Amino acid sequence: MDFYEHASQPLLVVISGPSGVGKDATLSRMKEMGYPFHFVVTATTRPKRPGEVHGRDYFFVSVDEFVAMIEKDELLEHALVYDEYKGIPKSQVRQALASGKDVIMRLDVQGAATIRKLVPDAVLIFLVASEKELLGRLQARKTESPASLTKRIATARQEMTRMVDFDYVVVNRDHHLDDTVRQIAAIITAEKCRVEQRRIVL
Amino acid sequence: MDFYEHASQPLLVVISGPSGVGKDATLSRMKEMGYPFHFVVTATTRPKRPGEVHGRDYFFVSVDEFVAMIEKDELLEHALVYDEYKGIPKSQVRQALASGKDVIMRLDVQGAATIRKLVPDAVLIFLVASEKELLGRLQARKTESPASLTKRIATARQEMTRMVDFDYVVVNRDHHLDDTVRQIAAIITAEKCRVEQRRIVL
Repeated sequence: MDFYEHASQPLLVVISGPSGVGKDATLSRMKEMGYPFHFVVTATTRPKRPGEVHGRDYFFVSVDEFVAMIEKDELLEHALVYDEYKGIPKSQVRQALASGKDVIMRLDVQGAATIRKLVPDAVLIFLVASEKELLGRLQARKTESPASLTKRIATARQEMTRMVDFDYVVVNRDHHLDDTVRQIAAIITAEKCRVEQRRIVL
Repeated sequence: MDFYEHASQPLLVVISGPSGVGKDATLSRMKEMGYPFHFVVTATTRPKRPGEVHGRDYFFVSVDEFVAMIEKDELLEHALVYDEYKGIPKSQVRQALASGKDVIMRLDVQGAATIRKLVPDAVLIFLVASEKELLGRLQARKTESPASLTKRIATARQEMTRMVDFDYVVVNRDHHLDDTVRQIAAIITAEKCRVEQRRIVL
C-alpha cells in the first residue's frame, strides 16, 4: 500500500449557546486541562468582570478601537450583542491554523451563524442548559438587572430554535463541567477520525 | 422552553477493516471495559480458534445449519469470506435496538458495505494498520498457510480502497489497543451529541 496514515487537517471549533450557558467556564476548564488548541481571544467592548484579564480572557477595547478594527477588516466576524461589540481577530485564527493547530472559539449564537456561512466546514457545538440553571447562573453573576435577566432568558428561548444549524449539542449541567469538557473532547477526537475531512478556508 | 433534553437514539456501530487488523481484539477489550453495548455474536462456519467460546465469541455452526439460516431469512447479512460463511442473526440486533441499547458488531469489509446499503444510518468505522503490523499479526495466529497469508494481504490492499465508504477511520497500532478503543468510544460519544440524529431501521 503502504497503509493509510491519517493526516488530519486542523479544525475550527466553535462553542456557542445562549448567554449564561457556560461557554467561558467550559473554555477555561479546557485551557486548565492543557488541551493543545489555540484558544481564540475575542475582542469586546463590554466591561471586564471580576477576575478577567486583558489579553487572556478577552481583548477589552473601547468602542472607537473596535470600530477601527471593523473598518480595517481585521475581524473574522463581529456582532453587537446586548449593546456590546464582540469580534474575532482574523490574523490570530489564520496564524494558528497555518501552524497546524486546532482553533477553538466561543461565540454567541448569531456569531456562530455568521461563521457557518463564512467557514461551512467549521465544527459548531451548541451548549444548552435547563432554563432554571441558566437563570441561576445569570443571577450569580450579579451584573444583570432584572430587566436584563428577562431579556436574556427571552433571547435564550429564541436562540434554542437555532440549534438545528449546529453540528453537535452538549448539555452543560450545574456541577458537571467535566462531563461537558469530556464530550467536547470526544467530538474533536471523532472529527479527527472522519474519513471525509473538513477543510477550513478563511 | 423547557430546554432541550437530549434524547439520543440507539446506534448501530460497525467495526470493520482488513483481516488481521484487530477487529476481534478491539471488541474483546471494549467488552472487558464494560461498555454498555449489545455486542453482536456472529454466526460462522469457520473452525474455532484456541480460547474462543461458542455463543460468546461466535456461534460456530455447520455449513448445513448456516444454509438453513439463510433460507429462513434469519440473517441481517451474510458473506462467504476466505471460504467460510459469516452472518449476523437479525433477531438479536432487533431485540437490542428495541430495548434502547446501542449495538456494535464486527464485519468484514464486504459485510460493512452490505450494512451501508441496508441501514444507511449505521456508523461505519474502518480499522487500519500498517502492512508490516498486519502481516505480523496474521503470522502470529499460526493458522494461516503462506498462500493464505499472501491472499489476505492482497485482499487487504484492495479493501483499503473501500475506506471512502466508511464514516470514520481508526489506526490500530501494535500495543496501542487502548488508544483504538478510546477513539471508538469518542466516536460513539460524539455521535450521541449530533444534532441530526441517525435513525436505525431494520
